[in-house]
Amino acid sequence: MSVITVLVLGSPGDEPPPKLDRLAGRARVLHADEKSLAELLPAADALLVWDFTSDAVRRSWPGPGRRPGWVHTASAGVDRLLGCPELVASKAVITNARGVFDRPIAEYTAGLVLAMAKDFPGSWKLQNERRWRHRETIRLAGTHAIVVGSGPIGREIGRTLLALGVEVELVGRRGRAGDPDFGRIHPSAALGGLLPSADWVVCAAPLTPETTGMFDAAAFSRMKPGARFVNVGRGAHVVQDDLVAALASGRLAGAALDVFAEEPLPPDSPLWDTPGLLVSPHMSGDTLGWRDALAEQFCDNFDRWAAGEPLFNVVDKQLGYVPDRSAP
Amino acid sequence: MSVITVLVLGSPGDEPPPKLDRLAGRARVLHADEKSLAELLPAADALLVWDFTSDAVRRSWPGPGRRPGWVHTASAGVDRLLGCPELVASKAVITNARGVFDRPIAEYTAGLVLAMAKDFPGSWKLQNERRWRHRETIRLAGTHAIVVGSGPIGREIGRTLLALGVEVELVGRRGRAGDPDFGRIHPSAALGGLLPSADWVVCAAPLTPETTGMFDAAAFSRMKPGARFVNVGRGAHVVQDDLVAALASGRLAGAALDVFAEEPLPPDSPLWDTPGLLVSPHMSGDTLGWRDALAEQFCDNFDRWAAGEPLFNVVDKQLGYVPDRSAP
Repeated sequence: MSVITVLVLGSPGDEPPPKLDRLAGRARVLHADEKSLAELLPAADALLVWDFTSDAVRRSWPGPGRRPGWVHTASAGVDRLLGCPELVASKAVITNARGVFDRPIAEYTAGLVLAMAKDFPGSWKLQNERRWRHRETIRLAGTHAIVVGSGPIGREIGRTLLALGVEVELVGRRGRAGDPDFGRIHPSAALGGLLPSADWVVCAAPLTPETTGMFDAAAFSRMKPGARFVNVGRGAHVVQDDLVAALASGRLAGAALDVFAEEPLPPDSPLWDTPGLLVSPHMSGDTLGWRDALAEQFCDNFDRWAAGEPLFNVVDKQLGYVPDRSAP
Repeated sequence: MSVITVLVLGSPGDEPPPKLDRLAGRARVLHADEKSLAELLPAADALLVWDFTSDAVRRSWPGPGRRPGWVHTASAGVDRLLGCPELVASKAVITNARGVFDRPIAEYTAGLVLAMAKDFPGSWKLQNERRWRHRETIRLAGTHAIVVGSGPIGREIGRTLLALGVEVELVGRRGRAGDPDFGRIHPSAALGGLLPSADWVVCAAPLTPETTGMFDAAAFSRMKPGARFVNVGRGAHVVQDDLVAALASGRLAGAALDVFAEEPLPPDSPLWDTPGLLVSPHMSGDTLGWRDALAEQFCDNFDRWAAGEPLFNVVDKQLGYVPDRSAP
């Protein structure tokens, strides 16, 4: 069997490289950083985008020389890769980390919803001030949630909220009936009509031209007064100033963002101290061992590639995500 | 039908009295506060302990005159009432609010567990400092929890954690097999042997002589290094100094207390700023509408009392809680 050259686009920050021991003897593993990627790209059969926060692929792909036939990103979202028209137009197959983040993000989202329902931020602020102030909080069971995104992450969020007694409506690109968990998936066109009934609105959609900026002033103005919003999708799903205004006006009682248009969120961003807004640093899916799970998943797909079998988690470059039929 | 005199021991703070409109025409409702209770007690057929944080019953019951035949407390715990030997020795039936708090407390506890797993306190502290610092957090599914307390609150907490993928062991006073949700309930004597395996230890037990101080240095020393502890039972379940020491030594990675030996927690208590400790003001069960639910429950039991039928939620004065067979 011929040796396959795998190029790894380096780790964010000081993180160790992925554990690819399983490829020993079958792959030559090269490591690139943002600077060396353009030079090393022509040598690669496969590209593992380990640092999925980097824009280096978009900048380097259009350069001279041969290009890898397979690009795998260690992320669920592929919006950054699809921002490179030359990669989209190429024959290269793109695969993603679909599956690794579902359960962690669902837990994180359920935790945020419960934290807002029970006003943990208020309690911990009062704790800092050594003040005992009893309040009444929200009973979560029986409240209504809309989850935007009917991929595996949105579905797992929906199932987790269902398990907590929440009534859940799932919104996807296409509407469809007969869903085993949710009965019916609503088409995105139905979102506006659903928003007024929701106590919780969760964004877990892929970032595509259609979903960019979908949470804007018009969307927030349709939400129930006192509703709460959670974004674990991508920062660009939300028009940031419109969200701040919806919180300031009291239309929204609270919001939690784990993702931002610019990451890291700049120190001077007004989001850091917007009242009612909870900020976390894009970590909802990243539980202990996540890097190993991502490396394992890449190696599983490598086994298929090496054997000439179809890859799993193949991204539809037009849709901007992995359609259901391609799931493993 | 003769008119029954219901005496209501007043509301905590400035809260409105319970809505007892349903009793109109069938009951004469008198209101007492801590000072007038002793004087009004002989006139009462039934006593509704609406302010369940008061010690007035213990002080007033031993006084002169006739005593009500039924005492209902708007709380799940009856430790305060059972601190009155004369009430315990009397023929008066005690009933409690069993059932009202199950779901809210289970949600609150699940929220605390998720908040600790996902390090929300850390994220919101960093948010205050406008610092972006990604961390890896705990995947809750697959972790192990022990819930101490096999009454309806403990069971509902256990079921909620099960729904989140946690492996749950329930500990009750008596061990028993064949439980529909948990397979097996462990006897309290087994707790020491179970503690080393738990990532989460939740106290939701009734406060009895046997359970007072059960979470002491010996118990904390048996817990897995890095375990986390939640108390939604009663403050006196925990030896406060031992908990602080277990957090300081790093044996426990975190703890959350909603109940305290002294409530309100005094402003100079060291608990307010013990690192790793989350404090909330005894509110885990108190969701919007809880007072109406408590009043409804009392009225439901009043209907039985007026009809000469057996009451539900009758407390076993020796056990210190409502045994399962008495549940509605």
